[in-house]
Amino acid sequence: MQKQIKLVKRPIGLPTKEDFEFVQAPIAVPAEGEVLVRTVYISVDPYLRGRMNEGKSYIPPFELDSVIASGVIAQVVESKSTHFKKNDIVLGSLGWQEYSVVKETGIQKVDTNLAPASAYLSVLGMTGLTAYFGLVDIGQPKEGETVVVSGAAGAVGSIVGQIAKIKGAYVVGIAGSDEKVKYLQEELGFDAVINYKTEDINDSLAKACPNGIDVYYENVGGEIADAVYPLLNKFARIPVCGAISAYNNEVADVGPRVQGYLIKTSSLMKGFTVGDYSARFGEGTMALAGWLQEGKLQYEETVTEGFDNTIDAFLDLFAGANLGKAIVKVAEIES
Amino acid sequence: MQKQIKLVKRPIGLPTKEDFEFVQAPIAVPAEGEVLVRTVYISVDPYLRGRMNEGKSYIPPFELDSVIASGVIAQVVESKSTHFKKNDIVLGSLGWQEYSVVKETGIQKVDTNLAPASAYLSVLGMTGLTAYFGLVDIGQPKEGETVVVSGAAGAVGSIVGQIAKIKGAYVVGIAGSDEKVKYLQEELGFDAVINYKTEDINDSLAKACPNGIDVYYENVGGEIADAVYPLLNKFARIPVCGAISAYNNEVADVGPRVQGYLIKTSSLMKGFTVGDYSARFGEGTMALAGWLQEGKLQYEETVTEGFDNTIDAFLDLFAGANLGKAIVKVAEIES
Repeated sequence: MQKQIKLVKRPIGLPTKEDFEFVQAPIAVPAEGEVLVRTVYISVDPYLRGRMNEGKSYIPPFELDSVIASGVIAQVVESKSTHFKKNDIVLGSLGWQEYSVVKETGIQKVDTNLAPASAYLSVLGMTGLTAYFGLVDIGQPKEGETVVVSGAAGAVGSIVGQIAKIKGAYVVGIAGSDEKVKYLQEELGFDAVINYKTEDINDSLAKACPNGIDVYYENVGGEIADAVYPLLNKFARIPVCGAISAYNNEVADVGPRVQGYLIKTSSLMKGFTVGDYSARFGEGTMALAGWLQEGKLQYEETVTEGFDNTIDAFLDLFAGANLGKAIVKVAEIES
Repeated sequence: MQKQIKLVKRPIGLPTKEDFEFVQAPIAVPAEGEVLVRTVYISVDPYLRGRMNEGKSYIPPFELDSVIASGVIAQVVESKSTHFKKNDIVLGSLGWQEYSVVKETGIQKVDTNLAPASAYLSVLGMTGLTAYFGLVDIGQPKEGETVVVSGAAGAVGSIVGQIAKIKGAYVVGIAGSDEKVKYLQEELGFDAVINYKTEDINDSLAKACPNGIDVYYENVGGEIADAVYPLLNKFARIPVCGAISAYNNEVADVGPRVQGYLIKTSSLMKGFTVGDYSARFGEGTMALAGWLQEGKLQYEETVTEGFDNTIDAFLDLFAGANLGKAIVKVAEIES
């Protein structure tokens, strides 16, 4: 038997532990072309909150009473596929459970010589690709331009800021604790960082951006975004990646309408999800791996130990508790 | 002596006649390289409201106690330029006054064989180019897609809808009177038109767009735009041209924040002004003139007679009184 985590209630507002249930289930046996894997790392991500609601979005909602799924690093226990052998390390979108049986087409091997396995859930995975394509394809920062990123100490934001630095931009981060501010300035070399919880965001942002804002990489929405609009330069670009401040809203998310700001500055806002760029994942992964090997890209992980703490790790995202990528470590890799 | 119109007070909210003053001034004498012209048609446009405020925008504000300026068609009275002769018909950004002295580089001749002179303030002028570039460059409608345009019976909106039809789109207009609805459906061939003043915009828009919305050409902002967002299709495009509903607001223009909608559908919003495309005006004018000559493009003008009624014509814009381009006829063309 093994443990699984099911969604048993659709959260109203902020999710709580009561919305989830730990259950016991048998471990399935792989058929021809299938592989049995043991879960090693589980990725917990803010976007999963959206999948817990009913209704159409860019990915289908989770079904009630079924196992939640996200990015998972796993190790092959038993293979009925010619493509995988015992102990291979693989990546897939797998269930929140200790073991999975998966078709050979549903997983891919990862190269742990290039980077530790968990990096394929962060800088070399969907997180890194989300940062890369939003910034490079939509944001298009040019040397000397001002790039502002919100959720700057988060998994995506911390990569965004570093890529912007690589591109020669002046980088301003917005984060929610002094520890995060210190990390972004001292470890990642951000030019300025604002603690939106202790500073007046309008004042501090204007001071941090004396030349206006050319790119705003949006991770949070809400009043932080509202403070950005009046500072936009002509032809500014806003990649809209996330709006975590609104994910748990029970009432309508209301703020200044953007049309006037966009017209005055001929600015662009573009929503996206990383899946829009699936045809270009190779390009993105190559760029990220190159910067990683050159030592130009650092990444931080907040690792929660133990499958039993998966829900806590997920809930902590909305308290802004994580620095860098939030990951649950379920088991050790065996060699 | 001649009459001029000066801005004497910065309007608060909706402009009133008290914000303007008619004054008498001498008619200047052209120096070498200059031309004296008699005003024939004055273009009154919603965007001029923005120039009556203080503060930075994409064009500088009007100075207090100086003559207001906009697009003007004029006829040469006396030329000290080798490029112009008496009775030439010219276009320029000129003052709201009966006569102007202007440098030869500040005006251009218009071809009245191709279209009546006033068309160079509407379909063949900035209005037509605004419709063309916003729709073709940002909106990029494809055959069979649904294009929604607000302010549909206005100068820009009526051209947008017709170009969208030429491109093979299903075109839905939003306008503010039954007369306008009838004109758009019966004269311009829009597929559906909504009277937002008498219908529930959310219900009617959903019914008029059974396949969702691929392009929303934004002229008005406010609650009409709010009704569009939930209907956006994947990869929708929103050229943001104007937001006339907010131009006279004294309090902040507040509504649903757009980030969530843009992320869910990977949609784009892009503000612009026609000046962004100045390097491509030739392309736009050729396309518009071609469609006009092929009979594929109709245009309507609401002509107010007499210089003394210029302010009324401007104020009428915010009451939605005009069908097509609002123009003031100041004098007859002499031959």
